[in-house]
Amino acid sequence: MNFRTILKPLVIILFFVLLFMVFPFLLAIYYKEPAAMKAFFSVMVSAVVICMIAFGFLRRWQIQRIAIRESFVLVALCWVSISFVSALPFYVSGAIPNFSEAFFETVSGFSTTGATILTDIEVLPKSMLFWRSLLHWLGGMGIIVLAVAVLPLLGVGGLQLLKAEAPGPTVDKVSPRISETAKILWGIYVGMTVVEAMLLNFAGLSYFDAFNHAFATVATGGFSPKNDSVGAFHSPLVEWIVIVFMILAGMNFTLHYKIITGKTRQVFRNTELRVYFAVVTICALLVAVNLFSHNVYSVHDSLRQAFFQVSSIITTTGFSTADYKKWPAFAQYIIFLLMFSGACSGSTSGGVKLIRIITLMKLAINELKYLIHPKAVMPIFIDGNVVRKDMVYSISAFVFLYAASVLTTACICALSGESVLTSFTAALSTVGNIGPGFGRIGPVENYHFFKDWVKWFLSAAMIIGRLEIFTVMVIFTRAFWKK
Amino acid sequence: MNFRTILKPLVIILFFVLLFMVFPFLLAIYYKEPAAMKAFFSVMVSAVVICMIAFGFLRRWQIQRIAIRESFVLVALCWVSISFVSALPFYVSGAIPNFSEAFFETVSGFSTTGATILTDIEVLPKSMLFWRSLLHWLGGMGIIVLAVAVLPLLGVGGLQLLKAEAPGPTVDKVSPRISETAKILWGIYVGMTVVEAMLLNFAGLSYFDAFNHAFATVATGGFSPKNDSVGAFHSPLVEWIVIVFMILAGMNFTLHYKIITGKTRQVFRNTELRVYFAVVTICALLVAVNLFSHNVYSVHDSLRQAFFQVSSIITTTGFSTADYKKWPAFAQYIIFLLMFSGACSGSTSGGVKLIRIITLMKLAINELKYLIHPKAVMPIFIDGNVVRKDMVYSISAFVFLYAASVLTTACICALSGESVLTSFTAALSTVGNIGPGFGRIGPVENYHFFKDWVKWFLSAAMIIGRLEIFTVMVIFTRAFWKK
Repeated sequence: MNFRTILKPLVIILFFVLLFMVFPFLLAIYYKEPAAMKAFFSVMVSAVVICMIAFGFLRRWQIQRIAIRESFVLVALCWVSISFVSALPFYVSGAIPNFSEAFFETVSGFSTTGATILTDIEVLPKSMLFWRSLLHWLGGMGIIVLAVAVLPLLGVGGLQLLKAEAPGPTVDKVSPRISETAKILWGIYVGMTVVEAMLLNFAGLSYFDAFNHAFATVATGGFSPKNDSVGAFHSPLVEWIVIVFMILAGMNFTLHYKIITGKTRQVFRNTELRVYFAVVTICALLVAVNLFSHNVYSVHDSLRQAFFQVSSIITTTGFSTADYKKWPAFAQYIIFLLMFSGACSGSTSGGVKLIRIITLMKLAINELKYLIHPKAVMPIFIDGNVVRKDMVYSISAFVFLYAASVLTTACICALSGESVLTSFTAALSTVGNIGPGFGRIGPVENYHFFKDWVKWFLSAAMIIGRLEIFTVMVIFTRAFWKK
Repeated sequence: MNFRTILKPLVIILFFVLLFMVFPFLLAIYYKEPAAMKAFFSVMVSAVVICMIAFGFLRRWQIQRIAIRESFVLVALCWVSISFVSALPFYVSGAIPNFSEAFFETVSGFSTTGATILTDIEVLPKSMLFWRSLLHWLGGMGIIVLAVAVLPLLGVGGLQLLKAEAPGPTVDKVSPRISETAKILWGIYVGMTVVEAMLLNFAGLSYFDAFNHAFATVATGGFSPKNDSVGAFHSPLVEWIVIVFMILAGMNFTLHYKIITGKTRQVFRNTELRVYFAVVTICALLVAVNLFSHNVYSVHDSLRQAFFQVSSIITTTGFSTADYKKWPAFAQYIIFLLMFSGACSGSTSGGVKLIRIITLMKLAINELKYLIHPKAVMPIFIDGNVVRKDMVYSISAFVFLYAASVLTTACICALSGESVLTSFTAALSTVGNIGPGFGRIGPVENYHFFKDWVKWFLSAAMIIGRLEIFTVMVIFTRAFWKK
């Protein structure tokens, strides 16, 4: 492990993220929030000074090509250290006086989980609420992706870093140059955010609310500056806008690029996308029928609530407009089921992701065929291409480690005295970066009641889930540190 | 599909199972239970007559070599038809006047699940209780295995049938001749049953109770003729005997053969066995510490209850001595966790089985290593042998289909209005052939409250689980019926 190659990029990326604190700082001035203003200012100044001093020491170190090992450690360290620094404003300003909670809230934002420890969100200064939403936005497309896009000096080894931040069968290069790819992805992401914010503003939300919700939607985060989440606006139009953008954010962003560049035929032949639309539609209709037949809502309300909640969970956003824990059992179960899934690869959503489930399903069908034709040769096809054997292995291993992470996290919750249902869904929800669950963490409840030491473990689970398991777990293997 | 090759063995096996009704019939005479006596007699006579007539028609059909396709259909049909016929005595005698429930109870027995619909077990005639336990025993080692062992005419294609009844990485032939293997396995099974029954009798149980519990233990079934299950005897000695035999029944039976033939060194080097002992010991100690530290029981009681419940769930037996739903959260969670596991391959236990989890774990560790050494060649070793790639594929597919079966079964329970927790654990419990779960199906509760149509689906889930998913699912693929 060569810490020299890691330290300089780490300081650079940290410095880069600090720049974003300028926005909530300016908001604090605008809204006249002195505690928040002081907090952002002091954190920024002291962090910048520390970064500068570090630069002084690191000045003569050349930025080297980042090797595979180093990329994992760098990405993991980035996520942990950014979370630490980003938690400071909440803590210093007294908005969240308990540091365990401030850290949890920050990681929850940054990993786009959207689980909150706040019992009353609206008492927070507006600048703090904005910072909270901005964290979603930075973490959604990935801070490393952004850094690769705008900092040319990270160009060497950038692909490695991207893979470490979002591994899995995703990085379908849209451009041969990696920094170009990163720029395109972030460009689409920014565009989508602005369009949604404008539409929400048009639908009656203030610019503040519009941007906060847009950040949380396109990042599939789920933090809302309102206690009642999106339900607070009592506006079907707003909810439908959010539904559409949640679904868009759950799509592979390279497909958005293809749509923009006119390759729509390729897009609608994409297997994962078709499955995604099919799952959302079928599940939402099932829930809607269930809600309507139990006389919970009118026809239109049933449809809207169903589409909202189904999109919110499958994309791992976690917004809510209703307390699904009060819905009939079947509708609840569909929500529970979707907690295992996640949306498309290459999207901002979390979870296992559909492409992996599709691959395993095709593998299973193949294995059934082998029982009848043991000597046949039957490769697995997706989108007309053969899925390589090592990819199937990797997916099986991923799903296994994902399940192991969920069950371990749940074990820790149970150790703190939480019930099986609360523990299991809290684990599903944090590792999958969703937000709400069942038991004590329903959509209108929060994570405040967890013991502080549990919050640290849940924070770790959120980061592990966001970095798609492998990146963090590999650091803890013996092979990683050998030689 | 050649139904000619199937029909004759099917009638023969059915006839063979009917012979076992003689035992409860004799008991009914002995205990002077006229309704039960009449029921067993009429079912036996009419079934034998029908079998004879069928034989008349099938007389000239040669028993042919059973091909792969036919073996799956034959085994599945055997299990369904035996369950139907075996349910008749319960129904005809009025012991279980609802046929859906009688069928559920029979399948639950035969598949060694041990989930009951009886709200008061002890009101049933003793002969009926005996038949219920005997079903466990016949299903435990496998009725097809028994048929292959004692009916020489099934010798051709017997291996195929064995594989269809218990697929997966198990059939470690102890003898080159398959009927010999089947004889040895059943021999060990009978021996273990008799020894346990004798020990239980020595510990104070009547012969009736001793044999009933021995049947349910070595088959890892879980039916008890007592309302309070094994807890009814309030005897630590009885409980420890049952613990030991549950653990023995969860071992691979070929290892028992090796112990008998003096190859003990091989046995204790067996990876799966070592993991099994380690999991049981660690989980039981964790539960015991949790129980003791919450002042639920004394030290010895904590240990006994912990070992009992942990062994009962991991071996998928489902006996109970205490209501674990009243235990502290962590102990409950360990029980929940073990519902995902199952014991060793080649045992009478259900569930995913440890060897599959071990293989996936080794695969996952390998994949983590590949992240650092992408070009290395690292086969997976178990017990010093390389695990073939197609085996890893098959295991991944199995686990996927297993999960899909659980989630689908839970969906049906939820559709009938049961909560997420009840639905999910009922599905885990039926597909895994365990018995109890959480929610409304705790260890001192039962499955009576499920709607009748749900009981049919749960019965299907138990058979699918018992035949290790593939055997039933393959019948429903298009490839199976082609050409």
